[in-house]
Amino acid sequence: MILRDDCTARDLADELWPLRAEFRLNEGEIYLDGNSLGPVCETSFRRVNEVVETEWAKGLVRSWNSAGWMAEPTRLGDRLATLIGAQKGEVLVADTLTFLLAKLIGGALDLVPDRHIVLTDVDNFRSDIYIVEAMAARAGRPMIVKRIDRNTLDAELNEDVALVLLTHVDYRTGEMLDMKAITDKVHRAGGLMLWDFAHSTGAVPLDVEACDVDFAAGCTYKYLNAGPGAPGFMYVRKKWQGVLKNPLPGWLGHARPFDFELDYEAASGMQAWVTSSPSVISLASLDGALDVWDRATMEQVRTKSLALTDLFIELVEDRLAGVFEVVTPRDHAKRGSQVSLGHSDGYGIIQALIERGVIGDYRDPAICRFGFTPLYLRYVDVFDAVERLVEVMSSEMYREPRFAVRNSVT
Amino acid sequence: MILRDDCTARDLADELWPLRAEFRLNEGEIYLDGNSLGPVCETSFRRVNEVVETEWAKGLVRSWNSAGWMAEPTRLGDRLATLIGAQKGEVLVADTLTFLLAKLIGGALDLVPDRHIVLTDVDNFRSDIYIVEAMAARAGRPMIVKRIDRNTLDAELNEDVALVLLTHVDYRTGEMLDMKAITDKVHRAGGLMLWDFAHSTGAVPLDVEACDVDFAAGCTYKYLNAGPGAPGFMYVRKKWQGVLKNPLPGWLGHARPFDFELDYEAASGMQAWVTSSPSVISLASLDGALDVWDRATMEQVRTKSLALTDLFIELVEDRLAGVFEVVTPRDHAKRGSQVSLGHSDGYGIIQALIERGVIGDYRDPAICRFGFTPLYLRYVDVFDAVERLVEVMSSEMYREPRFAVRNSVT
Repeated sequence: MILRDDCTARDLADELWPLRAEFRLNEGEIYLDGNSLGPVCETSFRRVNEVVETEWAKGLVRSWNSAGWMAEPTRLGDRLATLIGAQKGEVLVADTLTFLLAKLIGGALDLVPDRHIVLTDVDNFRSDIYIVEAMAARAGRPMIVKRIDRNTLDAELNEDVALVLLTHVDYRTGEMLDMKAITDKVHRAGGLMLWDFAHSTGAVPLDVEACDVDFAAGCTYKYLNAGPGAPGFMYVRKKWQGVLKNPLPGWLGHARPFDFELDYEAASGMQAWVTSSPSVISLASLDGALDVWDRATMEQVRTKSLALTDLFIELVEDRLAGVFEVVTPRDHAKRGSQVSLGHSDGYGIIQALIERGVIGDYRDPAICRFGFTPLYLRYVDVFDAVERLVEVMSSEMYREPRFAVRNSVT
Repeated sequence: MILRDDCTARDLADELWPLRAEFRLNEGEIYLDGNSLGPVCETSFRRVNEVVETEWAKGLVRSWNSAGWMAEPTRLGDRLATLIGAQKGEVLVADTLTFLLAKLIGGALDLVPDRHIVLTDVDNFRSDIYIVEAMAARAGRPMIVKRIDRNTLDAELNEDVALVLLTHVDYRTGEMLDMKAITDKVHRAGGLMLWDFAHSTGAVPLDVEACDVDFAAGCTYKYLNAGPGAPGFMYVRKKWQGVLKNPLPGWLGHARPFDFELDYEAASGMQAWVTSSPSVISLASLDGALDVWDRATMEQVRTKSLALTDLFIELVEDRLAGVFEVVTPRDHAKRGSQVSLGHSDGYGIIQALIERGVIGDYRDPAICRFGFTPLYLRYVDVFDAVERLVEVMSSEMYREPRFAVRNSVT
């Protein structure tokens, strides 16, 4: 039997405890949706203000040079590289996850013109499926996109597979895939591997180098806390740079943009992937958010993430035995930083919880999602969240008709 | 002979005068680069703060619904529609200009599968040329992109022309094309017309309806003052909606995004063009910037723009006779809201002017660009800018070696 005092004691011993003060959190509210949208940190707030009030207002157009705006996509890429185990010069922050996937898919399919199959996961996030199908349709040769059960990957891999696109942590179940084993398999079949890190970056330790990942992309508004609709990031392993071509180029990715040459010639390194002017204010928010990450290691984050999710699962099983199906794997090696609970009344349960100050979200079919973000969550938050979940379930308030009206996000 | 007092008198009579107070401008500086990056207005500043401090910090993930974030791309599209003569439901704010062009080009080429030629202007902005070539290469059939002298359009139009992509106001010369005449010509040849409004929106009155424009896209960080790297906008005429398909789709453009269906089915209207989560903070800045536009009509803006550019040309010719070539057309019907002066020492001249507090920019080959933005520029600013230009030329300070070092933007 776990007591609230036990949780308080763990909080007092928590190395990451000081970071909580960097976030603007609502008093009394427990935010378990940082896997959808992270909260504001003070450093983001300050950096956005600095960019608007000083760099933009006073520097005006000069700030493209003087404030370094032009270099933000690669500079922030280098900052972010450490979180995924990449080298400097392998990551770019730009656009959005879907457009970055589009570029990487288009470039990858051009690299292996004799192959005709793309494999992706039938449970992949829908934007990934739509964009891989869209880019495959424009590959210049007949392509087949197979939406497979990811557990059948071995049987599907063959010498006609050009590319495999998988999301490393499943957005619904929170299951984490074995990046190294899968990447190795795909390489043995002669294919290219593209990983979607939407639910991985800042959630679990990543080592693209050790896993020999070819390409990856992710977003920054979930566990990295860069703000709603903040830019995505992409990774291209050094050995592919200059080989893989950006299929959606723009003038700022030209080797000599200010010469305004008629023919496109790619800049070197990740700059070649810049299509448009960087979204400076959004990048400022990311820049500030990364300041907090400088004060934590991914090992610390992972240790606490597993402790928080273990605690949550244990409390739910203890106090709500048999009420929910724990959809997320118990095996640490297969768990991201969220816990998903299956329940046929999941939508109403999440709405009732939100009303009681515990913010999770719901995903069809029948999944209550709870994200656990070690930078600002306490062990007592986990305890209190389950306490309120017990109240919601025992009172059956989730059955009230007002919770049946579906809205779009949570 | 024009006197400074004449300019002061014109400022006092200027209906748009009150709007200047809405902008944060540097004391003593004359900003003639709003055609590259507009300044901050107070309403943008306030709106960005409101979104960060309240909607994001307190509302968190709920704000996708409760603060209307999800609907911002179409709501802001409707706000912007009035500036281009579009109807509500025909404009979307999203992504960046280049990605929006990519989508429109891809969609347009799919609409006319029996045609094989795309025409664009050899003087078009380079991103437009690169992206139209990139999308033509992925059209699924052999396509030829011809970079033509726009004055030879008549001779180039034939029954094999699928699409014509032109920028309405030339980014270097400031020449404005005859949108109606050109669109009509393209239509008579059975082609589709895509206009780039980067240097037109907020600069000149636009009437996509009267000109029977099929598709258009533009940016919001120039004359609309939405901030560095702010999102772009796109226009699809009602008659093409549902017919033209988004070639780079995402889940939020699905008819039922939260059903997470495996097959993509486009939402109705402009929502179908949403690929990614909206960049909420950047959109907030645009939202604030549009508040200023609500207080002006495009007719007022155009009248003052022509008066400012006429005044600038007259002063330059009067006081610097024969020194510069006035590259921008004198004919009002062919002039945007900038004046370009040709000079072989243009780069040094702009650098010297910037040091004296007049911000213009330089574009190869040998073009000094000056943007005139009626919302915050005064007639005395034009007078003083020419005064400082006269000083720069007579002192020959622009020949100083330090001005020979090229940097990237201005």
